[in-house]
Amino acid sequence: MNILITGGAGFIGTLLARTLLAQGQLGGEPIQRLTLADRAEAPPDLLADARVRAAVGPLLTQADDIARARHDAVFHLASAVSAECEADFELGMRSNLDSTRTLLEALRAAGNQPRLVFASSAAVFGGDPPFLPVPPLVEDHTLATPQTSYGTQKLMLEQLIGDYTRKGFLDGRAVRLLTVSVRPGRPNGAASGFLSGIVREPLAGIESVCPVPLDTEVAIASPARTIAALLRVYEASRDELGGRSALNLPALSVRVGDMLNALEAVAGAAVRARVRFEPDPRVERIVSTWPARFRSLRAEKLGLSPDPSFASVIEQYIADHPAAIQARR
Amino acid sequence: MNILITGGAGFIGTLLARTLLAQGQLGGEPIQRLTLADRAEAPPDLLADARVRAAVGPLLTQADDIARARHDAVFHLASAVSAECEADFELGMRSNLDSTRTLLEALRAAGNQPRLVFASSAAVFGGDPPFLPVPPLVEDHTLATPQTSYGTQKLMLEQLIGDYTRKGFLDGRAVRLLTVSVRPGRPNGAASGFLSGIVREPLAGIESVCPVPLDTEVAIASPARTIAALLRVYEASRDELGGRSALNLPALSVRVGDMLNALEAVAGAAVRARVRFEPDPRVERIVSTWPARFRSLRAEKLGLSPDPSFASVIEQYIADHPAAIQARR
Repeated sequence: MNILITGGAGFIGTLLARTLLAQGQLGGEPIQRLTLADRAEAPPDLLADARVRAAVGPLLTQADDIARARHDAVFHLASAVSAECEADFELGMRSNLDSTRTLLEALRAAGNQPRLVFASSAAVFGGDPPFLPVPPLVEDHTLATPQTSYGTQKLMLEQLIGDYTRKGFLDGRAVRLLTVSVRPGRPNGAASGFLSGIVREPLAGIESVCPVPLDTEVAIASPARTIAALLRVYEASRDELGGRSALNLPALSVRVGDMLNALEAVAGAAVRARVRFEPDPRVERIVSTWPARFRSLRAEKLGLSPDPSFASVIEQYIADHPAAIQARR
Repeated sequence: MNILITGGAGFIGTLLARTLLAQGQLGGEPIQRLTLADRAEAPPDLLADARVRAAVGPLLTQADDIARARHDAVFHLASAVSAECEADFELGMRSNLDSTRTLLEALRAAGNQPRLVFASSAAVFGGDPPFLPVPPLVEDHTLATPQTSYGTQKLMLEQLIGDYTRKGFLDGRAVRLLTVSVRPGRPNGAASGFLSGIVREPLAGIESVCPVPLDTEVAIASPARTIAALLRVYEASRDELGGRSALNLPALSVRVGDMLNALEAVAGAAVRARVRFEPDPRVERIVSTWPARFRSLRAEKLGLSPDPSFASVIEQYIADHPAAIQARR
């Protein structure tokens, strides 16, 4: 089993890589090689594993290597994020649309019909107010109407991957990831960044800014549920998946105020007090186009389920990142 | 008013050009220049008009000219057709996706926010059997799930044009054309070609092949209704259009057997007898993925309506193309 993870040095990429290396197999096949393609170098613990190979550089330049490597499994996570794509249209078109087309052509040229899991996004659902509202409840076959360039590019790629799959060029599966919270480390350029920051920073003893009102409802998934979804979608048969349409995931729907209540319940009032409010209309506008509620029956049939509570998400973060938690509450 | 029609030497393109030149204005503005961009030369009657300019060659090579011309209005009709795209994946990606991206970037570079009508297609609705059936009734916001590369490319472009519009790069409107019947002239590479051929060839005294069963139901529009839709969508305000989502059109839903009954009623049994049946599984498979029934309320609000009957469509064809009709019935 020869696996490629694009965006393999990113947060989800490294977490997926560690999970794969720890379990030693994918779909019952032992993992011989795991390539982490990314513009950045992967963390040392991953590079130290004899099975890991780093492919550092833009995906656009790696087509020949990818075609030659004949990967069996590909997790395509590399992407410019929402706020970047909104600020720089060309960046998004190049990093998302063109890079993915390059990847798809390389995988097709390899000729071995690799199985590809594509990280799409719930940002494909944006509505078109006032004509089409943001869907109040997203069901499996709700019409996607993106309100951002990021969501548009993801939706276009879902369709393209569906066509590559129909043509038999590869075996693609698109899964619409939810906002992942709590992400460790430093903020990235995503408009959703604060949904991790308002937990992560206070727990580290640092002030954090919440740019949206307390009653903003969002749909999130923990890192662990996100990884579980990527692996389950990889392993599922086409029948289990229920066709080529991109898969929505079960979501934990929670208001920002309730996220902070959970933070206070888990870590105390002093931690919560480190969050201050500073409205950012740009972020607020983007977040308001993301649906907050999902009924994801196809994913549930695969055995996937949402996080039970935001408190459990915070506890998971604290357990996984002891070094990032300020000792004294 | 400076207008560009891509695919301007094709059937719909020339018909649209003649209509525009005859009415002399678009949206109340007099037409000064009409550029017909096409790989083929436009017909002499159009080239003889002082307002007409031909831009012969692939769209991919015309970006600089288009950017410099600062068109006010663009009808983007140029496209590889369904059967071509299914037979040659690269051709479709280049002729549809890449060429349209080139056009969009040229129009954006022009900097004058031109109004663009994009000829998308009802082929964006294909279903994903057995998981998602072809929609038995397509409503305005029915989920599009293409089953062909052509439909996939059209759907991707609808989304991209929606994003260019949202960003203010241009004012785009995507309209999903139905199969046009009766097309004059010779068969093109479209899988839907027989839906004109089974009327046009018998009327000309020539045998014609019907590749699908008599009970196959299809959604069609006459050339005149198609041109009317393109013009109405151009002239509509954003409010009238009801947002950025691609617009479905009112359809005449008719079974192939009833098309032939209408042919017999209009032109006699001897004409109908020139149609023979020769199943073509490739065509049958493609046509079976096209929905046959539409409820297109947004388009109806614009005042658009379906052809009243297929007999009226045949009569229109006979009236418009006297030279193509065999004198003796």
